[in-house]
Amino acid sequence: MDESELPFESVSGLRLAAVAAGIRYQGRDDLAVFELRTGSQCAAAFTRNAFCAAPVALAKRHLASATPRYLLVNAGNANAGTGRAGLDDARSSCEALAGLAGCRPEEVLPFSTGVIGEPLPVARMTAALPGALERLEPGAWPAAARAIMTTDRVPKLVSRRFELDGRLATLTGIAKGAGMICPDLATMLAFLATDATVAPGPLQACLKGALEGSFNAITIDGDTSTNDASVLVATGALGNPPIQDAAGGALSALQAAVESVCQELATAIVRDGEGATKLVRVAVEEARTREEARRVAYTVAHSPLVKTALFASDPNWGRILAAVGRAGIPDVDIERVRIHLDRVLIVESGGRSAGYTEEAGAAVMVKPEIPIRIALGRGSARAEVLTCDLSYDYVRINAEYRT
Amino acid sequence: MDESELPFESVSGLRLAAVAAGIRYQGRDDLAVFELRTGSQCAAAFTRNAFCAAPVALAKRHLASATPRYLLVNAGNANAGTGRAGLDDARSSCEALAGLAGCRPEEVLPFSTGVIGEPLPVARMTAALPGALERLEPGAWPAAARAIMTTDRVPKLVSRRFELDGRLATLTGIAKGAGMICPDLATMLAFLATDATVAPGPLQACLKGALEGSFNAITIDGDTSTNDASVLVATGALGNPPIQDAAGGALSALQAAVESVCQELATAIVRDGEGATKLVRVAVEEARTREEARRVAYTVAHSPLVKTALFASDPNWGRILAAVGRAGIPDVDIERVRIHLDRVLIVESGGRSAGYTEEAGAAVMVKPEIPIRIALGRGSARAEVLTCDLSYDYVRINAEYRT
Repeated sequence: MDESELPFESVSGLRLAAVAAGIRYQGRDDLAVFELRTGSQCAAAFTRNAFCAAPVALAKRHLASATPRYLLVNAGNANAGTGRAGLDDARSSCEALAGLAGCRPEEVLPFSTGVIGEPLPVARMTAALPGALERLEPGAWPAAARAIMTTDRVPKLVSRRFELDGRLATLTGIAKGAGMICPDLATMLAFLATDATVAPGPLQACLKGALEGSFNAITIDGDTSTNDASVLVATGALGNPPIQDAAGGALSALQAAVESVCQELATAIVRDGEGATKLVRVAVEEARTREEARRVAYTVAHSPLVKTALFASDPNWGRILAAVGRAGIPDVDIERVRIHLDRVLIVESGGRSAGYTEEAGAAVMVKPEIPIRIALGRGSARAEVLTCDLSYDYVRINAEYRT
Repeated sequence: MDESELPFESVSGLRLAAVAAGIRYQGRDDLAVFELRTGSQCAAAFTRNAFCAAPVALAKRHLASATPRYLLVNAGNANAGTGRAGLDDARSSCEALAGLAGCRPEEVLPFSTGVIGEPLPVARMTAALPGALERLEPGAWPAAARAIMTTDRVPKLVSRRFELDGRLATLTGIAKGAGMICPDLATMLAFLATDATVAPGPLQACLKGALEGSFNAITIDGDTSTNDASVLVATGALGNPPIQDAAGGALSALQAAVESVCQELATAIVRDGEGATKLVRVAVEEARTREEARRVAYTVAHSPLVKTALFASDPNWGRILAAVGRAGIPDVDIERVRIHLDRVLIVESGGRSAGYTEEAGAAVMVKPEIPIRIALGRGSARAEVLTCDLSYDYVRINAEYRT
């Protein structure tokens, strides 16, 4: 894909660069640097995997003690499962960038993605940093979106314009992720930036609010990563009256833009899921609680039997029904459960719907996007999870990766 | 495989037969009938899937109101997700057998396995019943083991002899299952019979005690079936003093035999897992509670990333570590976690073990049986789960099944 095919808007107050450091891949960029204008604010959310990677641990510490000026991102090596040496390596890479850029190491946030358990090649990263700093420019978003890819087939880059107190604000974001995707608080890696002026509190609230319906509602393989991180930068270059609290329309305009960009990036991640041939939207309705609805949705979305049936374009609703039944919902009544494939009612009264035909089901299943709607008939809560099918290529990619 | 290759012992007091009813498969037996001697006792355990199949619902009712004389098992159709019509069909098949055999319908327990959501072809089953009753004989265990297979590649049949009050007792069991295997209280289908005389209470306790370490500790794909059922018959033909309670050595001898047969059948199910090329034993030690150990073991055993790495014979310990980290164990300390592949220490102190070499890991991974030992370093509870790898053939089998 030509980079000119990726439409986007630069974000005033933020420059970035992508370079080839030879961390794991050859002949492609694998290191990205983001430079944030002085006065920028930065919100972040990280994986809840108990064994979070060294860069995640260090980024949390740096965020607690300073306001970030740089984001340093590498692909090809996750610097996870690397013990204390991994923490030292992450710190060294921040120190190297800080020394060249003239800031404190705490003002650099490190992010890594790639293979777990191998030492981070700090020397190769450090050697590539001067070239990265020389190339910093506002328009390198497509290059950065490519540089952070691992098993991704396509870069993920989304922009929005929105109005803020009479000014036209910009929000642009990139994300990566195709496997080990079942984010819990954040996704593999996502970096969003706006030129709006926003105080830290509302900025963090904005990111948190957007995650629940986007990155925290997708799964490819159920494997929550050690390196998940989402960042939302506000450079303040727009010069709008600062968004200080939840009052007024400015925050809702920003919130809407952040949600929209996060949802589009999250959808792009699932569409690019390892080996994915179909995008599947599992919506669970009429649950007693949202938690119950999410539990059923994830059980269906994680079922290898449902996912292989989706790959085969087989409207095997029995597998969906069996997955709902094993989700551990107390006293769920099969007689009240209704399941739709798109608009086709396939299950009611404990079995196949009277009006259902295999032809009608098959007509939905051959589509590239498949909505599965499950009504539990016991309440009014709902939840939705995006996932993909399970194909030969998923096995190939994950059997071959690392070798 | 020639049936003469399956060594087994007949169980006095039980006759059985397998016939071809043409339920789904052609040119093979797909219906098995077990005839239990008058005075036999029968223990059973069923799936906890909330949407249990019609035969499961009916078998539970029949067990509550009568002592079984016949077990009627079919393969090729699960009679699940079939609503009230499915319940009527299961009842009709029991009535047909009862009419021919001269017993009450409540004395027949129905069991089905196969495709979910299609009407049970009762007429074809009924037509095959007279032939089955004519052929009843004590030695048809291998034929029955074959008749209940669906995607299984091999029949599963195990026998044990054990001493009971100076008499030589027999225990023989068969099982089927290769996919939708994550039993919760029971496995897909397992039928065990002994000639010992055992009262209902200790018989049920015996079955329950054996399930926890066998069928309830295996997973192939995490999908708990709608049709799981385990049955333990005691015909009493041996004439031993009846086992009435937990006292004495007789019950322990029986218990040991039941556990041994269940474990061998459970192992055979995993070894025959859909597309499986490897048997993987995930043992979690040094947990605070057994529940915690089971949770970690199942998280690792269900991880598609771990399973594809196992298929590729790739000692990708980072994926195992990441799965442990996402298992939701509060305050688990990565510094204290140790992971062994067989006897090779691969993870300690939060990262790759200092003495570990890829060669040592790879040497374990190429074996057909792979023990993964995970020590959490926070207690003394343990649990073990058997699973298999995730291969191209798993996707092929499940994408093609039903078509």
